[in-house]
Amino acid sequence: MVGGARAVERCKALGRAPFSDMEGGLYRAWLTPAYRAAREQVSAWMVEAGMTPRVDAAANLIGRYAGTGDGPPLIIGSHLDSVRDAGFYDGPLGIMLGIEAVAALSAQGRRMPFPIEVMAFGDEEGSRFPAAMLTSKAVAGVLSDVPEMADRDGVTLAEALAEFGSAPDRLMEARHPGALAYLEAHIEQGPVLEADGLALGVVTGIAAQLRFAVVMKGLAGHAGTSSMPLRRDALAGAAEMVLAIESIARADASDLVATVGRLEVLPGAANVIPGEVRLTIDVRSGDAARRDRAAEAILAALPAIADRRGLSLSVEQVHDLPASPCDPGLMDLLEAALVAQGHPARRLVSGAGHDAMILASLAPTAMLFIRCRDGISHNPAEDVTPADADAALAVMLGFITRLGDARV
Amino acid sequence: MVGGARAVERCKALGRAPFSDMEGGLYRAWLTPAYRAAREQVSAWMVEAGMTPRVDAAANLIGRYAGTGDGPPLIIGSHLDSVRDAGFYDGPLGIMLGIEAVAALSAQGRRMPFPIEVMAFGDEEGSRFPAAMLTSKAVAGVLSDVPEMADRDGVTLAEALAEFGSAPDRLMEARHPGALAYLEAHIEQGPVLEADGLALGVVTGIAAQLRFAVVMKGLAGHAGTSSMPLRRDALAGAAEMVLAIESIARADASDLVATVGRLEVLPGAANVIPGEVRLTIDVRSGDAARRDRAAEAILAALPAIADRRGLSLSVEQVHDLPASPCDPGLMDLLEAALVAQGHPARRLVSGAGHDAMILASLAPTAMLFIRCRDGISHNPAEDVTPADADAALAVMLGFITRLGDARV
Repeated sequence: MVGGARAVERCKALGRAPFSDMEGGLYRAWLTPAYRAAREQVSAWMVEAGMTPRVDAAANLIGRYAGTGDGPPLIIGSHLDSVRDAGFYDGPLGIMLGIEAVAALSAQGRRMPFPIEVMAFGDEEGSRFPAAMLTSKAVAGVLSDVPEMADRDGVTLAEALAEFGSAPDRLMEARHPGALAYLEAHIEQGPVLEADGLALGVVTGIAAQLRFAVVMKGLAGHAGTSSMPLRRDALAGAAEMVLAIESIARADASDLVATVGRLEVLPGAANVIPGEVRLTIDVRSGDAARRDRAAEAILAALPAIADRRGLSLSVEQVHDLPASPCDPGLMDLLEAALVAQGHPARRLVSGAGHDAMILASLAPTAMLFIRCRDGISHNPAEDVTPADADAALAVMLGFITRLGDARV
Repeated sequence: MVGGARAVERCKALGRAPFSDMEGGLYRAWLTPAYRAAREQVSAWMVEAGMTPRVDAAANLIGRYAGTGDGPPLIIGSHLDSVRDAGFYDGPLGIMLGIEAVAALSAQGRRMPFPIEVMAFGDEEGSRFPAAMLTSKAVAGVLSDVPEMADRDGVTLAEALAEFGSAPDRLMEARHPGALAYLEAHIEQGPVLEADGLALGVVTGIAAQLRFAVVMKGLAGHAGTSSMPLRRDALAGAAEMVLAIESIARADASDLVATVGRLEVLPGAANVIPGEVRLTIDVRSGDAARRDRAAEAILAALPAIADRRGLSLSVEQVHDLPASPCDPGLMDLLEAALVAQGHPARRLVSGAGHDAMILASLAPTAMLFIRCRDGISHNPAEDVTPADADAALAVMLGFITRLGDARV
C-alpha cells in the first residue's frame, strides 16, 4: 500500500496506544509519552521514505530530503499533537502526505532543485498548556518570552521540556534559518467542500481569531443551607454569559462564530454552591472587523451579568490572531496543480487556525484543504477517504514540480 | 488550653499539611494520605483524653471510653473528610468536641453508666467517590451492595480501600452492634442562629434531599469551522438548564434550594465545541412534598431544552434522602441542657445532610447546631468562635449527665 491510502492508514495507526494518552480514544498532547512514541514512529517512516530525521529544541521532528541545490528548503508540515478525544486526521494527515510526497520522489530517484523538509510540529492545539502553536512559533522565530505555565496536573512546561532534553528559554533555538515556501495539507474541518461535491480546495487565508480567559468569583457555600436569594452562584452567572455569547454570535448570521469550549467549576462538588468559574471565549471571522465588533458586544455584556449577581469578573485576552492570507503566487501554483489533476478551481477561507499562519512569518505559505465527512473535526467521527487523500497527494506532487520549474 | 478553645485550635491545625491534600487550602478526602495523617493525629488526641482507639473495616476511627456498665454506648460522632477548598469546622469540630467531652470526664475521673464512643467518620461529603455517607451507612448497617466506583484520577474504591487494609465487600463489617444514642455537634452552615443572636440550637431533623446526575450529549466540533446554526453545543444546553433550575427554586420562595454544584465540560478545550456536559442537581427542603414538586418541575423542564437543541439527555437519581427527624426524648434532654446553661430554648431544621440522619437507623439521634459566622460553610471563610465551641461543650456534658441520670 502506498500514497493516500497509506497516509490514511498511518493516521489511524497513530490513533491507538502507544500513540494516545487516553483510554478508548485519541489524546496526544505535546511532550507526553504518546507524543514521544508517535514521534519515533513517524521518524522511522521518514527514514523509510528516504529522509534524514532530526529533532529541534522545541521537540519538533524534521525529516530532510536533499535537493540538487542546497538553498532554502520547501517545508511541508503539520502537527502531531491532538485535542482530547480527537479524530485521526487533524494534523497527522498533512505530515503523512508530506512523507508520501517525498517517498514518491525518492522511489523515482528524483531530486528537486531545493531540499524538502517534512516537519511534524509538537504543539498546535494547545491542548496541554494554556498556549497554542508554541512550536511553529519557535520555528518561525516569533516566540519571544515564554511565560511560566503548567498543565492540569501541575506539570510545568519547564519540567515537560526537560524530559525531552530542552527548556523554555531554549525554544527559540528551534528558529529555522529560512525557507523557500511552506505547504500544509489539512482536512477542511468544515462542510464547504463536501457540500459542493469537491475533494480539494486552495486556502486563501486563515480567519482572524480572538480568545479570552474569563474568571468569575462568587461565594462558595453549602448547597443545603444557603437560601436562593442570598446566593452568589458563579455557575449561574456563567450560564447567563454562555447564552449571551451564543446569542450575539447567532444574531450576526454570518461566518462569525463564538465558542465557550472550556468551563471549569470550583470547587466542583454536588453539595457546594459554585464559588468560581473559569471559562474561555473564542471568537472568529474571516473579516477581522466583524470579529472585533462581536467581541466588543460580548465584552460589554459580561460585566452587567456579573454585577447583577454580585460576582467579580476578570477578562484577559489570551490570543489575537490577525487574518493570515496565503501567498498569491503559491495559491496560483497550487490551483494550477489542482486543475491539472482534473479538479475544479476552488478557493476558500479557513475558519480554523493552522501552523501555516505562524509560518507565514518565515516563508510564503500555501494550504490545501481536503474534504472531511460531514465537516466533523475535533471528534472521533472525523473521517477522510483514501481516494481524497490520494488526490491531495497528486496535487502536492504537482505543486512541488511546479515550484521546481519556477525555481529553474 | 482546654475545652472549646482547644477544639477550635485543633480544627485549624487539621486544616494544614500534612492533613490536607491541597496546596494553599483544605481538601481531605476519604482514604487519602491527608486522611491517614489526620486519623493518626486524632487517634493520638483520643489516647491523650483517656480513650482506647480502634479502626473499623470502613477505615473509621473510634475512641472508646469505658463506662461503669458495659451496655450499648453513647456515640458522639461527626466526619473527618472535607469538601474541596473547605473550611476547618464542618465535621472535625463535632469530633473534637466529643474528645473534649471525654477529656473533661476523664480529668474528673468520672465514668458514666454507659461507655462513650467518639467516632470519626471517613466519608460524609462524598467529595472523592460519587456516593456520600458511605462510612456512616456501613456503621449503621444500611449499606448493602457497594457499586464499583472510581475517583477523578481513576483510582477505584477497591484500590483505595486496599491501602487501608479493607475492601468494598468488607465495608459491611463496620456495622456497629448497637448504641444507646447518637449525638452530633455541628456548625449550622446557615445564618439562622447568628441572625437570632444565639450561639446554639437543637436540631429537629434533617431536610429531605434529592440528587440527580445529568449527562447531555451534543456534537463536539471545531470552534472555528462549525457555523452557529448547525451546532449542537452541549454546554449551551446545560447553561439553559442551570438557569431553569435556579428559576424554579427561586420561584418557590421558601426554604427550598436547588443547586448545580458540579458541571464538567467534555472535551473541555478552548477550540472545541462542547460535545458533552455532566452535571449534578441537588434539591432540598424541610418539606419532602415541596422538594418533590420542585424536582418534578425541574425534571419536566430538561427534556424540552435538550430536544430543542438536538441534545441527548440522561437523568439518573443518585440520592433520595427522606427527612430524618431527631429523637423527641433526646431533643428534650438536649434542650434541658441548653436551658440549664442559660441559653434560650431554640429548635431548628437542618438543610444539610449529616451522619446523624444515617445513624438514625442504629440509634435515637440528637444534634446540636453551633453558630457560624455569616452562615458560611464549604468555604475557607467558615468560622466559629472559641466561646461558642465552649458553650457547645458545656451543653454536651449536660446532655451526657442527663442521659446518665435517665439510665440509672
